[in-house]
Parts: sequence; C-alpha cells; structure tokens
Amino acid sequence: MGEFELIDRHFKPKPAAARLHQATAAPDSIATPVVLGIGDDCALLQPAPGMQLAISTDMLVEGRHFLPDVAPARLGHKALAVNLSDLAACGAEPLACTLALALPPERARDDAWLAALAGGLWALADAQRCPLVGGDTTAGPLNLCLTVFGQVPAGQALRRDGARVGDDVWVSGTLGHARLALGALRGEWTLPPQLLAAARTRLECPTPRIALGLALRGIAHSAADVSDGLAGDLGHILRASAVGACLDAQETMKTIAAGAFSASAEGLFDRQTLLRLALTGGDDYELVFTAPPDARSAVQAAGQASATPLARIGRIEAEPGLRLLGADGRIEPLAARAFDHFAP
Amino acid sequence: MGEFELIDRHFKPKPAAARLHQATAAPDSIATPVVLGIGDDCALLQPAPGMQLAISTDMLVEGRHFLPDVAPARLGHKALAVNLSDLAACGAEPLACTLALALPPERARDDAWLAALAGGLWALADAQRCPLVGGDTTAGPLNLCLTVFGQVPAGQALRRDGARVGDDVWVSGTLGHARLALGALRGEWTLPPQLLAAARTRLECPTPRIALGLALRGIAHSAADVSDGLAGDLGHILRASAVGACLDAQETMKTIAAGAFSASAEGLFDRQTLLRLALTGGDDYELVFTAPPDARSAVQAAGQASATPLARIGRIEAEPGLRLLGADGRIEPLAARAFDHFAP
Repeated sequence: MGEFELIDRHFKPKPAAARLHQATAAPDSIATPVVLGIGDDCALLQPAPGMQLAISTDMLVEGRHFLPDVAPARLGHKALAVNLSDLAACGAEPLACTLALALPPERARDDAWLAALAGGLWALADAQRCPLVGGDTTAGPLNLCLTVFGQVPAGQALRRDGARVGDDVWVSGTLGHARLALGALRGEWTLPPQLLAAARTRLECPTPRIALGLALRGIAHSAADVSDGLAGDLGHILRASAVGACLDAQETMKTIAAGAFSASAEGLFDRQTLLRLALTGGDDYELVFTAPPDARSAVQAAGQASATPLARIGRIEAEPGLRLLGADGRIEPLAARAFDHFAP
Repeated sequence: MGEFELIDRHFKPKPAAARLHQATAAPDSIATPVVLGIGDDCALLQPAPGMQLAISTDMLVEGRHFLPDVAPARLGHKALAVNLSDLAACGAEPLACTLALALPPERARDDAWLAALAGGLWALADAQRCPLVGGDTTAGPLNLCLTVFGQVPAGQALRRDGARVGDDVWVSGTLGHARLALGALRGEWTLPPQLLAAARTRLECPTPRIALGLALRGIAHSAADVSDGLAGDLGHILRASAVGACLDAQETMKTIAAGAFSASAEGLFDRQTLLRLALTGGDDYELVFTAPPDARSAVQAAGQASATPLARIGRIEAEPGLRLLGADGRIEPLAARAFDHFAP
C-alpha cells in the first residue's frame, strides 16, 4: 500500500464523520468551519466572526511518550487528547486537527494497526467535533505530530499569566494515576490487576477537559493543563503571573483519593509517595486553574455543568515559589518544576 | 540546557522579529495577527475579518528529507519553506507557524547547531512575516514537524480541483535542480563544483512562491506546489479536476534551461535524462497551475509583479491522464505519479 492509498483508506473521514463535518448544506446541516479537508495543498477553515484562533502542537515519540506495544486505538486517542487538553486549558472550542505521521516500514504495512490508530483518533475527533483535515505521512522512526485548532471569543482565552494574589487554586479530576500505571509498566512497582487496568486507562486514554475549559471562560483568572505534573504546570502559571502559591497537602490528598480506584492504591503506598505521584507524576491532562474566592460557587457550577469533579487545593500568594502546607501545619518549599525532556 | 531554556534561548522571537510581530501598539505598529506567541498552552491568532484559514503541515525526517550533515541554517529554512510552499499553492498570505522538534541528545546539547537551525527558520519567518508562535520539543530521533497558518479571502483559495479543459498549464521557476544535487550528493553522478553548489542551494534552500500565489488569486483556475515532481503534482490536479493534460517537451525543456546554471548541465546529461529530472525529480517547490488562454497576459503580469519566471508548458484536455508531446510530434503517455514514501 502506497502513501496516498494509506491516507485514503485510513485517515479520510468516514461517512458518519463526513456527515458531521462536510461543508455542504445537508438538510440537517450543522454549521461547520471546515471548508476544505484532506487532499489539497492546504486545508481551509472558516472560524466564526470575531473569534480568535487557538493553536497547539504536540509530538509523540515511541519509547518516550508511549510504549511500543500500546494498543494503536489508544495511541490514536491519546495523540489527539493531549492536544485537545491544550485547547481546554485556553477555554477554546475545537475546530479541526492535522496529523503528521512518520512510520517505520513494518507499521506502514500493518493495515490492522493503522486502522486501529486512525479509528481511535477519529472516535475522539468525532466526539469532540475536531475532524482531521490534513496532514503528512512519511517513512521514519514512529512519530505522531498532532496540531489542533480551536476558536475562542477575542479576549476570553484562559491564559497562564492571569493569576492574582488571593485566588484559589483548583484542579480537576484526579492526579497521579498515569504515573502509577507507568511505574507498574516499567517494573518500578506492582499493582493489583484491577487497579493497573484502571490506572493504565488513565495513562493511555486521557480525557481532555474541553467542556470544563469552555465553562470556565469569564470565571477563571488563569489556567494550564497538567501534562508535566501539577507542581510544574502550576509553576508555569506562577512564573507567567509573577506570583507564588501554597498548596494544602490534605486537600491535594483528597484530590488523589477522588478516583474510585484510588482507595486501593492508598494501602500500597505511603502518603508521601502518593502525594509525590500527584504533584510530579504528569500525563494527567487535568486542568489546574485559579479563580477569586467570590467565584467559588460559579466554579462549582462550571464543574457540575461539565460533569467534572473539582477540588480547591490552595491559594495564590505574593511570595514567589510553590509551598506545601502539611497536616502538621508546617509549610515546606516545593520545586515548581515540570518534566524536562532533556534533563540529565 | 533543559527543554524550557532551549526554547527560550533559540526559538522565541528575537528583538527584530518581536518588533514586527508583537501585538502591542508600537508607534510604527504593523497590524499583526499574533495575539499570543510562545509560552502558553496555545498560541492565539486573530485572522482578518472574512478570511478563511489555510493550514498545512510537513514532517522532515533525517536521512529521508535531509542528509545528516546538512547545514542547520539551511535545514531550518527548508522546514519552513516547504510548508510556505503549500500556502503559496493556495494563494494564502502567511500568518504564523509552529514547530514540533524531536532531538537526539547530541543535538540537544549542540548549542551552535540549534542556534543555526533556529536562525535559518527565523530568517525566512521574518522575511515572509510568518513568526513562530508555538511548538513542542522532545527527545527522539531527529524530526522537524512544521505547521503553517495563512489567510485567504473566503472563496478565493487556489485549489487542485478547478482545472478546466482548454486551460494552459504553467509552471514557475526552474525544475530538476534539486534532484540534480541529490544525485550528486548520493554519488549517482558527479557535477562541476559550481553547478553542484548552485543546485545544492536549490535543494537545501528552496524559495516558496508566496508572492506568485497571491498574485494568481482570481486568475488561476487551479494550482499545486511541485514537491513530489511535476508529473505527480500535476497528476493531483488532473485527478481532483477529472481532466487530463498534454505537456510540450520542448517548452518543458526550456523551463529546465531557464536557470542561469542549467546550460552547464545540458552538456553533462542527455535531453531525455534532463527531461526526466524535471518531470519527476521533486523537491522543487515551484508552483504548477492552470489558467484559461484569455488570462495569458494576466498570468504574465502576475509573474512580473512577483518577479517569478513563468513558462507555459502544456494544455488541459478532456481525456484523463498525462501525455508528453515530443519534438518529433509524437505523443507519449507519462505516469502522473508522485514520489511515494512507502513505495517498495
């Protein structure tokens, strides 16, 4: 199978997707921004009037971002999900995505693997109305580069530089489970099969918090997605906003315990280790954001409207840096560093 | 040097670029679509009202799209140029680009190499007003994935599917020299040093035909860029438009000879080989386009306005497929196939 047949067979929209995303006026037509999809030199999008375009790109490399034996449908899902998570962090509504794909010869020949990869990507693309509109395929070491495009009303994007002293620090969902699964897959520890399966789903099939990001427009002062670990990603907000923060270890622990399967992990690890997993684990694709205390009920309403669990875990302070308030009332400094791909 | 320092040092806009591209209102401010650049979860762009967004992405893999010893400044230039070439083929005006970059450890440590790579990219980005607004860096086998964003008035994009029977077929600049250089670098043949240097510049530093693409809006019926060889890329137009074409070998030869350094190649290769280089060589990043005969003077004016040499090399016909009219009056079929990354 050649390059162009490969694209035609696997990556062009399937009828269901085409129905939703084609720009032709069908009787039940849904307004779509896609003017021209796969097959020309460029894709053409028509954002709604007055909208700004939000753009993010992420590259996934075999052996670094995913294990060689990952289920291809999950890989397709994750490649799009980690990009959608960036749109969520900006409060942007997804419009479309492109995929550049380098494939070793054995993958290019593996029709079932490619079909599953494309199927996983398209399932999430359909669910989030973010159709694949273009891309590139080439031979090379396995590498997926997704770029996503979203729209947000001018001036309403959630940014990293808007946190203010006195803001609450909030985080969505649960943290640390992706790292829990990665450690088990790497042989750092063992997990009971049920916990491993649940944690592995969090690692391989993260849920981008698009609905929450949209609901937080006009409420949150700042936001980022948790891709490199809570401490690091909150650190980006602190540096961009020239502020500091103190997190409550107790509240952060409750966030970890919010997942139904987390109670079982509590018996396996000490609290210190669990806290470290949550603070620095990464690959969570939750949102960390700040909002003023008088917006607490609005934040809770945004969480309910988007069916997303939220926890208030700390406070923005004038003093730079990140601190942790322990159960014993002691405050300890925390390194506000993200995962670094080139760290020694 | 860590990932974030690497981005800060090399890939954030330098003062000159920042002056042009920042969204702050400077006294001599030029309207810029970049609302938010590198450093947040997403970049934010504001296309002009009524504009459609043109998007293209290309992935460059070491050993396949470039040789390991290529000058890094040229690699940075080319990674952006091949994407800008897609915007040119659509008649779109560049707005911004993103870069996802996988680096092996020895490259990540090589400050001079990175500075040259970023310098080459930024030089073209500044010249074409297409600033780098975001991206991703990771460890991995060397891979550059550029995505470009341009804007074009709604309905005015040049597309592959608009060629009509009777249209002239035009091509810009010169063809075949990139392949000439590649063959010399691969040891397929030898070239005199001066010809090699000139041809190698065409291979490593292609000129995206942005100004020509803009000038052809409203004149050309269809267009594509010549990245995989003239026969293949014209083939894309023919299939998308459900037409065929006959090229004049004499005129195509003149196109090859248009470059100042091509006369010297004529003595080294027979005409048949030169013709094959021009028709199937690839990596030219010229535009192939069609326009009605009554637009010939408008096409010539567009070429002059954009300082781009143009040649009229054939005609669109109703009969599908691609044919070549020889000097002896014989018509031969030509395979309208593009370079295929997964061909055996």
